[in-house]
Amino acid sequence: MAKYQVVFVRHGQSQWNLENKFTGWVDVPLSEQGVIEAKEAGAVLKEQGFKFDEAFTSVLKRAIKTCNIILEESDQEFIPVVKDYRLNERMYGALAGLDKKETVEKHGAEQVHIWRRSYDIPPPACEKDHPYHPSKSPWAASIPEDKLPATESLKLTLERVLPYWDEVIVPEIKAGKKVLIAAHGNSIRAILKYLDDISEEVIPALDVPTGVPLFYEFDENMKPIKQEGAAEHLSGRYLIDEETLKAKIEEVKNQTKAK
Amino acid sequence: MAKYQVVFVRHGQSQWNLENKFTGWVDVPLSEQGVIEAKEAGAVLKEQGFKFDEAFTSVLKRAIKTCNIILEESDQEFIPVVKDYRLNERMYGALAGLDKKETVEKHGAEQVHIWRRSYDIPPPACEKDHPYHPSKSPWAASIPEDKLPATESLKLTLERVLPYWDEVIVPEIKAGKKVLIAAHGNSIRAILKYLDDISEEVIPALDVPTGVPLFYEFDENMKPIKQEGAAEHLSGRYLIDEETLKAKIEEVKNQTKAK
Repeated sequence: MAKYQVVFVRHGQSQWNLENKFTGWVDVPLSEQGVIEAKEAGAVLKEQGFKFDEAFTSVLKRAIKTCNIILEESDQEFIPVVKDYRLNERMYGALAGLDKKETVEKHGAEQVHIWRRSYDIPPPACEKDHPYHPSKSPWAASIPEDKLPATESLKLTLERVLPYWDEVIVPEIKAGKKVLIAAHGNSIRAILKYLDDISEEVIPALDVPTGVPLFYEFDENMKPIKQEGAAEHLSGRYLIDEETLKAKIEEVKNQTKAK
Repeated sequence: MAKYQVVFVRHGQSQWNLENKFTGWVDVPLSEQGVIEAKEAGAVLKEQGFKFDEAFTSVLKRAIKTCNIILEESDQEFIPVVKDYRLNERMYGALAGLDKKETVEKHGAEQVHIWRRSYDIPPPACEKDHPYHPSKSPWAASIPEDKLPATESLKLTLERVLPYWDEVIVPEIKAGKKVLIAAHGNSIRAILKYLDDISEEVIPALDVPTGVPLFYEFDENMKPIKQEGAAEHLSGRYLIDEETLKAKIEEVKNQTKAK
């Protein structure tokens, strides 16, 4: 029997999604389209009567703003919002800030595909003098220096995200709180891999559409309960109709192609 | 010598400021003008290089949104934001939701003036079946029932706000954190009365302009240090030029007149 509930939302389109650049830990804002997507996510949650006791997000403004907009649209601004770098996007190493098309031209499509879609091969490390090295972020001071990654594979992302899920978020869920998690493509992928035991081959290509609430239910042991209308590979279901969902996933797929 | 710093901001104009209604704990949104004021406050803080480690606000959306906008405009969305009902506006009792002009016509200007501007005479209590009784708020569940006031004078507001200042905010300041407080006319008045030992005669009429950062410095014993350019009755100073400030205060004064 379903005992606990969680809703995941990947932030709406960011300015650099739009400009087709590798982003990772670079703190770019939502695009206008991204703001609209966040509002739509809030409207869906409001319409379906979702109430939360607590929200978790990263320290990156595109996720924080998505979270704030959702709470505003669904009339629950008053709940606590916890921000933590451990929910940040995968850190893209030296690729941060590069145009995806130029990167493909420089390193070849195959190499870029490996960096993007392998489970455990990280892109080249970002050196300290790189313009987007995380030590230059305004929030760097609030993070232990040895926790600032120079690059991350999805595997390394998962090793950062999962302890936070287990040690911080799950205890809140088990205390009976309904939780919203507004995060990023790869930090959400990491949790979903763990929850639904998705293979290392499948997970790197699992597309999480932007701004679409993904609803999970769990039994008393925090085992996910497969829902009617669950998405492929997942126990949870997206809270929008199938047609809109397909269009959304297509959008994300196109975004990640070198244009 | 100045050791600690705090910035107070009263939320921007709300929809009901605009419509000239008594608001108090009723959870009305910012007006368009209020959003602009919050953005301006954020721009001023950014321009003057203010960095915060933590922000405190109420559970009312007009203060929360002001806080979020300020953090967004000044590029520090990532800091923790603590929301607590003890920073809420003064609870306006049975007057909540009433048009100020109609209230004057019904009860007489003198009576309304007493409710608005006496230190310790609260308006008539709000009964449980009142459409705006706080027990009907979505955040009521997160507040102990005996803490939901039926009405408040400024004195009662102060008795709610000060323990929060002393027990929650001051320890953070003493731990070295730079703190932003985005709150309401009367919750800020309550703290200022305490900080600057303002008399019961003066404090009810002390106007705090909306959306203008008010900067305080404290010595190692949390005694406020009188600043150059400090506002009347206060040790702190508003972070805008005198002319703009005068216009702002005039605006607030006009708002509180029955039109």
